[in-house]
Amino acid sequence: MKRVVMKFGGSSVETIEKMQKIAGRIVKKRNEGYEVCVVVSAMGKSTNSLIQLAKQASASPNKRELDSLLATGEQVSISLLSMILQEMNQKAIGLTGFQAGIKTSGFHTNNRIEDIDVSHIEKYLNDGHVVVVAGFQGLNAAGDITTLGRGGSDTTAIALAAKLDCSCEIYTDVLGIYGVDPRLYPKAKKLYSISYEEMKEMAFLGAKVMEPRSIDIAHRYRVPLLVAHAHDEQEGTLIQEEDPMEHRPITGCSVSEKIVLVNIQHLPASLTLIAHLFVTLANEGVNIDMISQTQGSDGFVTLAFTASADDLDNLESVLGFLTHDEPEVIIHIDKHVVKVSVVGSGMRTQSGVAAQLFQLFADHGIVYKLITTSEISISYTMSKDHQHQAVQLISKAFDL
Amino acid sequence: MKRVVMKFGGSSVETIEKMQKIAGRIVKKRNEGYEVCVVVSAMGKSTNSLIQLAKQASASPNKRELDSLLATGEQVSISLLSMILQEMNQKAIGLTGFQAGIKTSGFHTNNRIEDIDVSHIEKYLNDGHVVVVAGFQGLNAAGDITTLGRGGSDTTAIALAAKLDCSCEIYTDVLGIYGVDPRLYPKAKKLYSISYEEMKEMAFLGAKVMEPRSIDIAHRYRVPLLVAHAHDEQEGTLIQEEDPMEHRPITGCSVSEKIVLVNIQHLPASLTLIAHLFVTLANEGVNIDMISQTQGSDGFVTLAFTASADDLDNLESVLGFLTHDEPEVIIHIDKHVVKVSVVGSGMRTQSGVAAQLFQLFADHGIVYKLITTSEISISYTMSKDHQHQAVQLISKAFDL
Repeated sequence: MKRVVMKFGGSSVETIEKMQKIAGRIVKKRNEGYEVCVVVSAMGKSTNSLIQLAKQASASPNKRELDSLLATGEQVSISLLSMILQEMNQKAIGLTGFQAGIKTSGFHTNNRIEDIDVSHIEKYLNDGHVVVVAGFQGLNAAGDITTLGRGGSDTTAIALAAKLDCSCEIYTDVLGIYGVDPRLYPKAKKLYSISYEEMKEMAFLGAKVMEPRSIDIAHRYRVPLLVAHAHDEQEGTLIQEEDPMEHRPITGCSVSEKIVLVNIQHLPASLTLIAHLFVTLANEGVNIDMISQTQGSDGFVTLAFTASADDLDNLESVLGFLTHDEPEVIIHIDKHVVKVSVVGSGMRTQSGVAAQLFQLFADHGIVYKLITTSEISISYTMSKDHQHQAVQLISKAFDL
Repeated sequence: MKRVVMKFGGSSVETIEKMQKIAGRIVKKRNEGYEVCVVVSAMGKSTNSLIQLAKQASASPNKRELDSLLATGEQVSISLLSMILQEMNQKAIGLTGFQAGIKTSGFHTNNRIEDIDVSHIEKYLNDGHVVVVAGFQGLNAAGDITTLGRGGSDTTAIALAAKLDCSCEIYTDVLGIYGVDPRLYPKAKKLYSISYEEMKEMAFLGAKVMEPRSIDIAHRYRVPLLVAHAHDEQEGTLIQEEDPMEHRPITGCSVSEKIVLVNIQHLPASLTLIAHLFVTLANEGVNIDMISQTQGSDGFVTLAFTASADDLDNLESVLGFLTHDEPEVIIHIDKHVVKVSVVGSGMRTQSGVAAQLFQLFADHGIVYKLITTSEISISYTMSKDHQHQAVQLISKAFDL
């Protein structure tokens, strides 16, 4: 029997009415002869409401407790969606993360899936049930409820599809993947197909439809991934192995808005000190992105890097320790920056893309601060003031 | 080290502010040298909100899914209260039913605790944590999340106290146990001590402070039980072994308002049929209370019993099958009834209480329908119209 994992995000399940609509879509898929495993997020803004309660309870809520609190959101969704499916005479059962056999490890609020024991799910699939699994959550070896952090429900869905050896359909509130965010460039074109690598790079560089870690799992286990609209039946975007016939030099342009640029001057040139800084940041769950380091002739180092604005509290507390231990250090955090990235696997074979971009920015006076490149992308950190102009220029130049 | 289980109901944890108040009380107890295990219910009316969502999702929500849905309420409470305790520099950890080792069996939405593996709780208690356990829930042998039905959080607290070999304090929104509900008789007197048996009988007969099953566990395991106000420090009521020096003939008077009286006439006098009826009612989770049966000379039987008004849907569907199979049967369900009960362990040794009651009702024209008696109580089913007068007469006559 054919199998599929269908994933619905928070905006697709924010009311009972919306759940009834997606339940219709699930039953249709089932009637087409599929065994269906569904992964759902928490209803609409319910996770935010829980976070608000946690903030009232504590200035910095304990993360183990926060995980346990947030995990209730998806548990509510699976129960209600299962009831709705049963009301439509479709056998269905809701499973929380631990009931679905999802084992995690790592830090609270930012765990990763270690393994999934799908025997429970397969038993119910074989028995004709639609199995509705709570996304975003699992259980660690200590028996604590854990959550997977951003994009966690996508990760759950894709990891399940990998384990259940089937494809995965991500239903969301956009019609598919665009070369550039239509909110930033209204003439943006939808892509009907994109490679894992390009999608991962786009996601990593700020396209918000999916998190890179999810796509990474899909890529690693070769899970075909469809991204489509939850309430609109038009064709979405298929994420799959690269098709060498279809090389475009540039697939997309993405913007990361919620970043900060950290500049540390007059840092003693000690490998131990710098390593300790990054280890401490990692332990506090601060994700560091672009790193640039220059050494002056005075024996001191200037270090610049970007980090997620969401991690600002932890970032500032770690940097606070640094200035305490090394009082001569000068730290500046610039919050008025964005990262504009250009992605395309064609950049591997077609040279000149970077040159074209530098020329474009020079012609229009767009100043950038940090630059990083990968095999298939190039990213510029710049002032928020230049973001709009940069996206327009890139989209027109590369027909996105 | 001394130990105690403190239980706080939904109205005591309905806001973060109220949780902060009870957290103060918990820390105070801890500073008095107690190891403290706390049991909490869902916040205020949150269980009702979840039930409303379930009713939107399905006309008769699947009970397994309903259990999973409702269990999120207590999970929210344990996480938030633990955060608040930690914010007050008190080590604390929240445990859901399954994490606390609570194993249940029975029917979904109405399970009973089979056993508790307290090793996880004891580990944290020994380590100086306040352990905050989600009331009302557990896990069955199939790995499904279950709930315990009415009074479930009290049951959790008392069962934990039995397993942890300590006393249990039930904090609620009343100042203690009264001989008669002060809302029904404003001059009612608070009891400072009451025996398990009397309390159980009172609860069984409608006093709403605690469910009889909870008191039954306390009695069986000799768990001393204090009932007191969550936000008022005045002395509550201690429920404990009977003190033979303090026999009062009547301890209290209680009223069950949410009942219906079922009258079945022209029922064939078949033991199999009647047994089948009660077995079916039990399987549907309908709790039957007072039963009276009379046999006519025509070979037919008249059967009357009371049931909880909450079970009315299930009751009517079972009775529907009966009229389908036995079309000559005449069923009447009277919803305008209450049960007024008089309780006192002194009734064992002091005769004349029943006679006094019958005289009282006769003098004032109070008509009753069914009567049942136990060793320490006597109950009358009567029209709602007579409830007020009956309670006033009894309270005055026995100085409650």
